[in-house]
Amino acid sequence: MNGKLVVGLAGMPGAGKSVVVNVAKAMGYGVVVMGDVVREEASKRGLEPSPENLGRIMLELREKEGASVIAKKCTKKIRDAKEQKVIVDGIRSLAEVEEFKKQFPKFALLAVHASPETRFKRLYHRQRSDDPKNWQIFHERDMRELSVGLGNAIAMAEHLIVNEDDLETVKRKAEEVLRKVEEKWMK
Amino acid sequence: MNGKLVVGLAGMPGAGKSVVVNVAKAMGYGVVVMGDVVREEASKRGLEPSPENLGRIMLELREKEGASVIAKKCTKKIRDAKEQKVIVDGIRSLAEVEEFKKQFPKFALLAVHASPETRFKRLYHRQRSDDPKNWQIFHERDMRELSVGLGNAIAMAEHLIVNEDDLETVKRKAEEVLRKVEEKWMK
Repeated sequence: MNGKLVVGLAGMPGAGKSVVVNVAKAMGYGVVVMGDVVREEASKRGLEPSPENLGRIMLELREKEGASVIAKKCTKKIRDAKEQKVIVDGIRSLAEVEEFKKQFPKFALLAVHASPETRFKRLYHRQRSDDPKNWQIFHERDMRELSVGLGNAIAMAEHLIVNEDDLETVKRKAEEVLRKVEEKWMK
Repeated sequence: MNGKLVVGLAGMPGAGKSVVVNVAKAMGYGVVVMGDVVREEASKRGLEPSPENLGRIMLELREKEGASVIAKKCTKKIRDAKEQKVIVDGIRSLAEVEEFKKQFPKFALLAVHASPETRFKRLYHRQRSDDPKNWQIFHERDMRELSVGLGNAIAMAEHLIVNEDDLETVKRKAEEVLRKVEEKWMK
Protein backbone atom coordinates (compact mmCIF):
# COMPACT_ATOMS: atom_id res chain seq x y z
CA MET A 1 0.00 0.00 0.00
CA ASN A 2 1.26 3.47 -0.85
CA GLY A 3 1.02 6.83 0.84
CA LYS A 4 1.90 8.30 4.18
CA LEU A 5 0.52 7.12 7.50
CA VAL A 6 -1.40 10.05 8.99
CA VAL A 7 -2.57 10.07 12.60
CA GLY A 8 -5.13 12.75 13.45
CA LEU A 9 -5.13 13.84 17.08
CA ALA A 10 -8.16 15.36 18.83
CA GLY A 11 -8.59 16.51 22.41
CA MET A 12 -10.06 19.29 24.50
CA PRO A 13 -7.71 22.04 25.75
CA GLY A 14 -5.45 20.65 28.47
CA ALA A 15 -6.28 17.00 27.75
CA GLY A 16 -2.66 16.28 26.89
CA LYS A 17 -2.34 16.47 23.10
CA SER A 18 1.19 17.85 23.28
CA VAL A 19 2.40 14.87 25.32
CA VAL A 20 1.09 12.52 22.63
CA VAL A 21 2.72 14.65 19.94
CA ASN A 22 6.06 14.46 21.72
CA VAL A 23 5.82 10.68 22.00
CA ALA A 24 5.05 10.51 18.27
CA LYS A 25 7.97 12.80 17.47
CA ALA A 26 10.33 10.53 19.41
CA MET A 27 8.96 7.61 17.36
CA GLY A 28 9.90 9.37 14.13
CA TYR A 29 6.65 11.08 13.20
CA GLY A 30 6.56 14.40 11.44
CA VAL A 31 4.27 16.92 13.16
CA VAL A 32 1.70 19.20 11.54
CA VAL A 33 -0.13 21.57 13.90
CA MET A 34 -3.55 22.56 12.57
CA GLY A 35 -3.58 25.70 14.72
CA ASP A 36 -0.52 26.95 12.82
CA VAL A 37 -2.72 27.53 9.78
CA VAL A 38 -4.84 29.87 11.88
CA ARG A 39 -1.79 31.51 13.43
CA GLU A 40 -0.34 32.13 9.96
CA GLU A 41 -3.65 33.72 8.94
CA ALA A 42 -3.55 35.98 12.03
CA SER A 43 0.00 37.03 11.22
CA LYS A 44 -0.98 37.76 7.59
CA ARG A 45 -3.71 40.04 8.92
CA GLY A 46 -1.35 41.71 11.40
CA LEU A 47 -3.35 40.43 14.39
CA GLU A 48 -1.99 39.16 17.72
CA PRO A 49 -2.36 35.40 18.20
CA SER A 50 -4.61 35.77 21.27
CA PRO A 51 -7.11 32.95 21.90
CA GLU A 52 -9.95 35.34 21.02
CA ASN A 53 -8.39 36.38 17.69
CA LEU A 54 -7.48 32.81 16.79
CA GLY A 55 -10.96 31.58 17.75
CA ARG A 56 -12.60 34.24 15.65
CA ILE A 57 -10.36 33.63 12.61
CA MET A 58 -11.00 29.88 12.85
CA LEU A 59 -14.78 30.39 12.86
CA GLU A 60 -14.52 32.92 10.02
CA LEU A 61 -12.40 30.66 7.81
CA ARG A 62 -14.84 27.79 8.36
CA GLU A 63 -17.79 29.96 7.53
CA LYS A 64 -16.23 31.31 4.34
CA GLU A 65 -14.48 28.21 3.03
CA GLY A 66 -16.31 25.31 4.64
CA ALA A 67 -15.87 23.04 7.65
CA SER A 68 -12.79 21.29 6.25
CA VAL A 69 -10.88 24.44 5.24
CA ILE A 70 -8.12 23.99 7.81
CA ALA A 71 -7.67 20.31 6.96
CA LYS A 72 -7.34 21.27 3.29
CA LYS A 73 -4.66 23.84 4.12
CA CYS A 74 -2.79 21.16 6.14
CA THR A 75 -2.75 18.61 3.33
CA LYS A 76 0.18 20.26 1.59
CA LYS A 77 2.15 20.43 4.83
CA ILE A 78 1.61 16.71 5.35
CA ARG A 79 2.73 15.86 1.81
CA ASP A 80 5.77 18.16 2.16
CA ALA A 81 6.89 16.57 5.43
CA LYS A 82 9.98 14.44 4.91
CA GLU A 83 8.68 11.72 7.26
CA GLN A 84 6.59 8.81 6.01
CA LYS A 85 4.38 9.02 9.11
CA VAL A 86 2.85 12.27 10.30
CA ILE A 87 0.80 13.23 13.35
CA VAL A 88 -1.71 16.05 12.84
CA ASP A 89 -2.33 17.93 16.06
CA GLY A 90 -5.67 19.63 16.63
CA ILE A 91 -8.44 17.81 14.71
CA ARG A 92 -11.67 19.62 15.50
CA SER A 93 -14.46 18.01 13.49
CA LEU A 94 -15.60 14.98 11.54
CA ALA A 95 -15.52 17.10 8.36
CA GLU A 96 -11.76 17.38 8.85
CA VAL A 97 -11.50 13.66 9.47
CA GLU A 98 -13.36 12.95 6.23
CA GLU A 99 -11.07 15.31 4.32
CA PHE A 100 -7.92 13.63 5.65
CA LYS A 101 -9.31 10.15 4.97
CA LYS A 102 -9.99 11.17 1.39
CA GLN A 103 -6.43 12.46 0.94
CA PHE A 104 -4.65 9.80 2.98
CA PRO A 105 -6.14 6.30 2.94
CA LYS A 106 -3.82 5.29 5.80
CA PHE A 107 -5.44 7.55 8.36
CA ALA A 108 -6.22 6.88 12.03
CA LEU A 109 -8.17 9.10 14.42
CA LEU A 110 -6.75 9.29 17.92
CA ALA A 111 -8.19 11.23 20.87
CA VAL A 112 -6.95 12.07 24.33
CA HIS A 113 -9.38 12.75 27.18
CA ALA A 114 -9.28 14.17 30.68
CA SER A 115 -12.04 15.51 32.92
CA PRO A 116 -12.79 19.26 32.82
CA GLU A 117 -11.44 19.58 36.38
CA THR A 118 -8.15 17.90 35.49
CA ARG A 119 -7.79 19.96 32.31
CA PHE A 120 -8.45 23.23 34.07
CA LYS A 121 -5.89 22.48 36.78
CA ARG A 122 -3.29 21.61 34.16
CA LEU A 123 -3.84 24.73 32.09
CA TYR A 124 -4.05 26.94 35.13
CA HIS A 125 -0.69 25.71 36.38
CA ARG A 126 0.88 25.82 32.93
CA GLN A 127 -0.01 29.45 32.32
CA ARG A 128 1.18 29.62 28.76
CA SER A 129 0.28 33.05 27.38
CA ASP A 130 -2.99 31.74 25.94
CA ASP A 131 -4.01 29.67 29.01
CA PRO A 132 -7.18 30.54 30.91
CA LYS A 133 -6.98 32.73 34.01
CA ASN A 134 -10.26 31.45 35.48
CA TRP A 135 -12.95 28.78 35.15
CA GLN A 136 -15.30 30.96 33.10
CA ILE A 137 -12.72 31.73 30.41
CA PHE A 138 -11.78 28.05 30.39
CA HIS A 139 -15.41 27.00 30.01
CA GLU A 140 -16.04 29.48 27.20
CA ARG A 141 -13.07 28.11 25.32
CA ASP A 142 -14.39 24.55 25.82
CA MET A 143 -17.75 25.59 24.40
CA ARG A 144 -16.08 27.29 21.41
CA GLU A 145 -14.14 24.10 20.68
CA LEU A 146 -17.28 21.97 20.97
CA SER A 147 -19.26 24.33 18.74
CA VAL A 148 -17.16 23.36 15.70
CA GLY A 149 -17.62 19.65 16.37
CA LEU A 150 -14.65 18.60 18.50
CA GLY A 151 -16.90 16.45 20.71
CA ASN A 152 -17.99 14.44 17.69
CA ALA A 153 -14.40 13.78 16.68
CA ILE A 154 -13.61 12.56 20.21
CA ALA A 155 -16.72 10.34 20.31
CA MET A 156 -15.77 8.77 16.95
CA ALA A 157 -12.07 8.27 17.71
CA GLU A 158 -10.60 4.90 16.76
CA HIS A 159 -8.28 5.04 19.75
CA LEU A 160 -8.89 6.96 22.94
CA ILE A 161 -6.30 7.66 25.62
CA VAL A 162 -7.54 8.59 29.08
CA ASN A 163 -5.02 10.98 30.63
CA GLU A 164 -5.86 11.29 34.32
CA ASP A 165 -2.71 9.79 35.78
CA ASP A 166 0.96 10.67 35.73
CA LEU A 167 3.04 11.61 32.70
CA GLU A 168 4.72 8.21 32.39
CA THR A 169 1.35 6.44 32.15
CA VAL A 170 0.06 8.62 29.33
CA LYS A 171 3.37 8.34 27.47
CA ARG A 172 3.19 4.56 27.69
CA LYS A 173 -0.44 4.55 26.50
CA ALA A 174 0.39 6.86 23.58
CA GLU A 175 3.28 4.66 22.48
CA GLU A 176 1.08 1.54 22.68
CA VAL A 177 -1.64 3.13 20.57
CA LEU A 178 0.78 4.43 17.93
CA ARG A 179 2.38 0.98 17.67
CA LYS A 180 -1.09 -0.51 17.12
CA VAL A 181 -1.86 1.98 14.36
CA GLU A 182 1.46 1.21 12.68
CA GLU A 183 0.88 -2.53 12.92
CA LYS A 184 -2.45 -2.11 11.17
CA TRP A 185 -1.18 0.12 8.35
CA MET A 186 2.50 -0.64 7.93
CA LYS A 187 2.30 -4.31 7.09
CA MET B 1 -25.12 17.22 52.26
CA ASN B 2 -28.61 16.16 51.23
CA GLY B 3 -30.09 14.63 48.12
CA LYS B 4 -29.52 11.60 45.98
CA LEU B 5 -26.30 10.75 44.23
CA VAL B 6 -27.06 10.75 40.50
CA VAL B 7 -24.62 9.34 37.96
CA GLY B 8 -25.35 10.26 34.35
CA LEU B 9 -24.09 7.78 31.77
CA ALA B 10 -23.29 8.71 28.16
CA GLY B 11 -21.95 6.57 25.33
CA MET B 12 -22.37 5.87 21.65
CA PRO B 13 -24.46 2.83 20.61
CA GLY B 14 -22.56 -0.35 21.41
CA ALA B 15 -19.95 1.37 23.60
CA GLY B 16 -21.04 -0.70 26.61
CA LYS B 17 -23.47 1.43 28.61
CA SER B 18 -25.51 -1.59 29.69
CA VAL B 19 -22.45 -3.28 31.21
CA VAL B 20 -21.81 -0.19 33.33
CA VAL B 21 -25.51 -0.07 34.31
CA ASN B 22 -25.37 -3.71 35.44
CA VAL B 23 -22.28 -3.05 37.56
CA ALA B 24 -24.05 -0.07 39.14
CA LYS B 25 -27.17 -2.17 39.79
CA ALA B 26 -25.07 -4.78 41.59
CA MET B 27 -23.62 -1.94 43.71
CA GLY B 28 -27.12 -0.90 44.82
CA TYR B 29 -27.91 1.84 42.32
CA GLY B 30 -31.42 2.45 41.07
CA VAL B 31 -31.60 2.65 37.28
CA VAL B 32 -33.45 5.22 35.18
CA VAL B 33 -33.32 4.70 31.41
CA MET B 34 -33.75 7.95 29.49
CA GLY B 35 -34.88 6.08 26.39
CA ASP B 36 -37.89 4.76 28.35
CA VAL B 37 -39.39 8.25 28.27
CA VAL B 38 -39.26 8.12 24.48
CA ARG B 39 -40.56 4.54 24.39
CA GLU B 40 -43.49 5.55 26.63
CA GLU B 41 -44.25 8.40 24.26
CA ALA B 42 -44.20 5.99 21.29
CA SER B 43 -46.58 3.65 23.09
CA LYS B 44 -48.91 6.56 23.94
CA ARG B 45 -49.01 7.40 20.23
CA GLY B 46 -49.58 3.76 19.26
CA LEU B 47 -46.26 3.57 17.37
CA GLU B 48 -43.82 0.67 17.25
CA PRO B 49 -40.57 1.28 19.16
CA SER B 50 -38.39 0.98 16.05
CA PRO B 51 -35.11 2.95 16.05
CA GLU B 52 -36.53 5.23 13.34
CA ASN B 53 -39.73 5.99 15.32
CA LEU B 54 -37.83 6.50 18.57
CA GLY B 55 -35.27 8.73 16.85
CA ARG B 56 -38.00 10.82 15.29
CA ILE B 57 -39.96 11.17 18.54
CA MET B 58 -36.79 12.14 20.41
CA LEU B 59 -36.00 14.90 17.92
CA GLU B 60 -39.64 16.05 17.91
CA LEU B 61 -39.86 16.25 21.72
CA ARG B 62 -36.63 18.25 21.84
CA GLU B 63 -37.82 20.62 19.17
CA LYS B 64 -41.16 21.24 20.87
CA GLU B 65 -40.14 21.29 24.52
CA GLY B 66 -36.43 22.13 24.45
CA ALA B 67 -33.12 20.28 24.61
CA SER B 68 -33.57 19.16 28.22
CA VAL B 69 -37.13 17.80 27.85
CA ILE B 70 -36.16 14.16 28.40
CA ALA B 71 -34.03 15.00 31.44
CA LYS B 72 -36.97 16.91 32.91
CA LYS B 73 -39.24 13.92 32.41
CA CYS B 74 -36.65 11.70 34.14
CA THR B 75 -36.36 13.88 37.23
CA LYS B 76 -39.52 12.50 38.77
CA LYS B 77 -38.40 8.92 38.12
CA ILE B 78 -35.12 9.63 39.91
CA ARG B 79 -36.89 11.18 42.91
CA ASP B 80 -39.36 8.27 43.03
CA ALA B 81 -36.62 5.63 43.00
CA LYS B 82 -36.27 3.99 46.39
CA GLU B 83 -32.46 3.96 46.14
CA GLN B 84 -30.31 6.83 47.42
CA LYS B 85 -28.01 6.49 44.42
CA VAL B 86 -29.30 6.32 40.88
CA ILE B 87 -27.63 5.77 37.51
CA VAL B 88 -29.26 7.51 34.54
CA ASP B 89 -28.64 5.61 31.33
CA GLY B 90 -28.56 7.49 28.04
CA ILE B 91 -27.42 11.10 28.57
CA ARG B 92 -27.31 12.73 25.14
CA SER B 93 -26.40 16.38 25.59
CA LEU B 94 -24.87 19.00 27.86
CA ALA B 95 -28.33 20.59 28.21
CA GLU B 96 -29.44 17.40 29.95
CA VAL B 97 -26.34 17.44 32.14
CA GLU B 98 -27.11 21.03 33.19
CA GLU B 99 -30.71 20.09 34.00
CA PHE B 100 -29.64 17.17 36.19
CA LYS B 101 -26.97 19.24 37.95
CA LYS B 102 -29.60 21.85 38.76
CA GLN B 103 -31.93 19.23 40.22
CA PHE B 104 -29.30 17.04 41.88
CA PRO B 105 -26.22 18.80 43.25
CA LYS B 106 -24.54 15.42 43.77
CA PHE B 107 -24.26 14.63 40.07
CA ALA B 108 -21.41 13.00 38.14
CA LEU B 109 -21.09 12.57 34.39
CA LEU B 110 -19.65 9.26 33.28
CA ALA B 111 -18.97 8.15 29.70
CA VAL B 112 -18.00 4.88 28.09
CA HIS B 113 -16.10 4.80 24.80
CA ALA B 114 -15.18 2.26 22.15
CA SER B 115 -14.06 2.69 18.54
CA PRO B 116 -16.71 2.67 15.80
CA GLU B 117 -15.32 -0.64 14.55
CA THR B 118 -15.58 -2.29 17.96
CA ARG B 119 -19.07 -0.90 18.51
CA PHE B 120 -20.32 -2.08 15.14
CA LYS B 121 -19.00 -5.60 15.69
CA ARG B 122 -20.66 -5.76 19.09
CA LEU B 123 -24.04 -4.55 17.88
CA TYR B 124 -23.89 -6.72 14.78
CA HIS B 125 -23.29 -9.83 16.85
CA ARG B 126 -25.86 -8.85 19.47
CA GLN B 127 -28.67 -8.41 16.95
CA ARG B 128 -31.25 -7.09 19.38
CA SER B 129 -34.35 -6.11 17.41
CA ASP B 130 -33.14 -2.53 17.10
CA ASP B 131 -29.50 -3.34 16.25
CA PRO B 132 -28.06 -2.31 12.86
CA LYS B 133 -27.99 -4.80 9.99
CA ASN B 134 -25.15 -3.02 8.17
CA TRP B 135 -22.50 -0.31 8.48
CA GLN B 136 -24.59 2.38 6.80
CA ILE B 137 -27.52 2.00 9.18
CA PHE B 138 -25.05 1.94 12.07
CA HIS B 139 -23.35 5.09 10.83
CA GLU B 140 -26.65 6.93 10.35
CA ARG B 141 -27.63 6.10 13.92
CA ASP B 142 -24.24 7.39 15.14
CA MET B 143 -24.80 10.65 13.27
CA ARG B 144 -28.32 11.00 14.71
CA GLU B 145 -26.94 10.54 18.22
CA LEU B 146 -24.18 13.10 17.60
CA SER B 147 -26.65 15.59 16.11
CA VAL B 148 -28.31 16.11 19.50
CA GLY B 149 -24.98 16.66 21.26
CA LEU B 150 -23.88 13.26 22.53
CA GLY B 151 -20.28 13.92 21.45
CA ASN B 152 -20.16 17.01 23.65
CA ALA B 153 -21.37 15.04 26.67
CA ILE B 154 -18.65 12.43 26.06
CA ALA B 155 -15.96 15.09 25.62
CA MET B 156 -17.01 16.76 28.89
CA ALA B 157 -17.36 13.57 30.97
CA GLU B 158 -15.82 13.65 34.43
CA HIS B 159 -14.91 9.98 34.13
CA LEU B 160 -14.33 8.09 30.92
CA ILE B 161 -14.12 4.33 30.59
CA VAL B 162 -12.44 2.91 27.51
CA ASN B 163 -14.14 -0.39 26.66
CA GLU B 164 -11.98 -2.14 24.07
CA ASP B 165 -10.99 -5.19 26.08
CA ASP B 166 -12.85 -8.08 27.68
CA LEU B 167 -15.95 -7.90 29.85
CA GLU B 168 -14.09 -8.37 33.12
CA THR B 169 -11.83 -5.38 32.42
CA VAL B 170 -14.70 -2.99 31.75
CA LYS B 171 -16.59 -4.27 34.79
CA ARG B 172 -13.56 -3.62 36.97
CA LYS B 173 -13.10 -0.13 35.50
CA ALA B 174 -16.79 0.70 36.03
CA GLU B 175 -16.67 -0.40 39.65
CA GLU B 176 -13.52 1.66 40.25
CA VAL B 177 -15.08 4.78 38.76
CA LEU B 178 -18.34 4.40 40.69
CA ARG B 179 -16.38 3.96 43.94
CA LYS B 180 -14.48 7.17 43.16
CA VAL B 181 -17.71 9.07 42.56
CA GLU B 182 -19.15 7.76 45.82
CA GLU B 183 -16.00 8.68 47.74
CA LYS B 184 -16.30 12.23 46.46
CA TRP B 185 -19.98 12.67 47.26
CA MET B 186 -20.81 10.28 50.06
CA LYS B 187 -18.42 11.55 52.69
